[in-house]
Amino acid sequence: MNHYPKSVQELIASLSRLPGIGAKTAERLAMYILRASPQESQQLAQRIVQVKQKTRLCRHCFAMSDGETCTICKDPSRNDGRLCVVEQPADMISIEKSGVWKGRYHILQGALSPIDGIGPDALRIRELLARIADGQVSEVVLATGTSVEGETTAVYLAEKLKAFPAIRVSRIATGVPVGGDLKYVDPMTLRKALESRHGL
Amino acid sequence: MNHYPKSVQELIASLSRLPGIGAKTAERLAMYILRASPQESQQLAQRIVQVKQKTRLCRHCFAMSDGETCTICKDPSRNDGRLCVVEQPADMISIEKSGVWKGRYHILQGALSPIDGIGPDALRIRELLARIADGQVSEVVLATGTSVEGETTAVYLAEKLKAFPAIRVSRIATGVPVGGDLKYVDPMTLRKALESRHGL
Repeated sequence: MNHYPKSVQELIASLSRLPGIGAKTAERLAMYILRASPQESQQLAQRIVQVKQKTRLCRHCFAMSDGETCTICKDPSRNDGRLCVVEQPADMISIEKSGVWKGRYHILQGALSPIDGIGPDALRIRELLARIADGQVSEVVLATGTSVEGETTAVYLAEKLKAFPAIRVSRIATGVPVGGDLKYVDPMTLRKALESRHGL
Repeated sequence: MNHYPKSVQELIASLSRLPGIGAKTAERLAMYILRASPQESQQLAQRIVQVKQKTRLCRHCFAMSDGETCTICKDPSRNDGRLCVVEQPADMISIEKSGVWKGRYHILQGALSPIDGIGPDALRIRELLARIADGQVSEVVLATGTSVEGETTAVYLAEKLKAFPAIRVSRIATGVPVGGDLKYVDPMTLRKALESRHGL
């Protein structure tokens, strides 16, 4: 890397900090940027800066939004009575892509992880309980991840939601992914899939 | 992707244009940039713009350089009599990493490709011949790629260099990469490796 001019070395160093981008890929990207048109690289740079300035969290559900309220919270066709609780904005996007959820969302902005110092106050749990206390919600789906942190968060929230006995609380199913070849599925997932087996 | 706010969608679109970055990776990178510190994303954006402003081609060898002359052309310990001809700046960097070459370089800025309209005039071949005509060079290694274009370029240059009978002209060897498992090596490479077999 010390064979590159300093400005190229610096760009490679910055690109290497992105997730999943190793030294080799960073070099390749830097070479591309170096050869790209000035317009293209200017635009990329501008968008990197603007995304942080323009994007904020929706004040209702804490999804990414261009304005105060996100498009899903603004959508009148959504079912106000159903709330899907996820960890991250990207999780919400994934569920949206599945097209199956017609209710609202609540993005916790993380999962409980005592080892990393992330307790309930670091997440949007207070805001979730406030939304539920409003009385419109009749069903909550806990769609936090199936990692230890995600499961812990789901258990914690289920416990908290016992204060609202009228609300149906559920957890997303764990099992073998669709199209999954069983020989590539990890033992923990297979165990869960067998434990949760059901009639046809 | 239409579930993201517009500024995020735009960033994903820009990132997707980078080589080897698909829609999924672009999303992941955009999420990282969104959560990175303002300093980190500002720095990345700045370096993307600056790399094009600060980097130019060395006026001797056409390598990437911060100034008029690159560090290798400035290095007095290099052997002026030996010239290694490569296609791209990145090829030179790869050879530098091997640590085996102590001569100078000449970067053609591409390879002959009539189908893409890249003829001898589109490359730095005139400059190469001018450097050689200077009289200091006694050996030229043709280290263009082993693709059809790279081989064509090497053959073309070898022909041109016949005008300098005193100069030793060679081509880098083609064969099985070091550490290469033969079952993963493509037939063309194996054929070359067998054709070029040598005594021990």
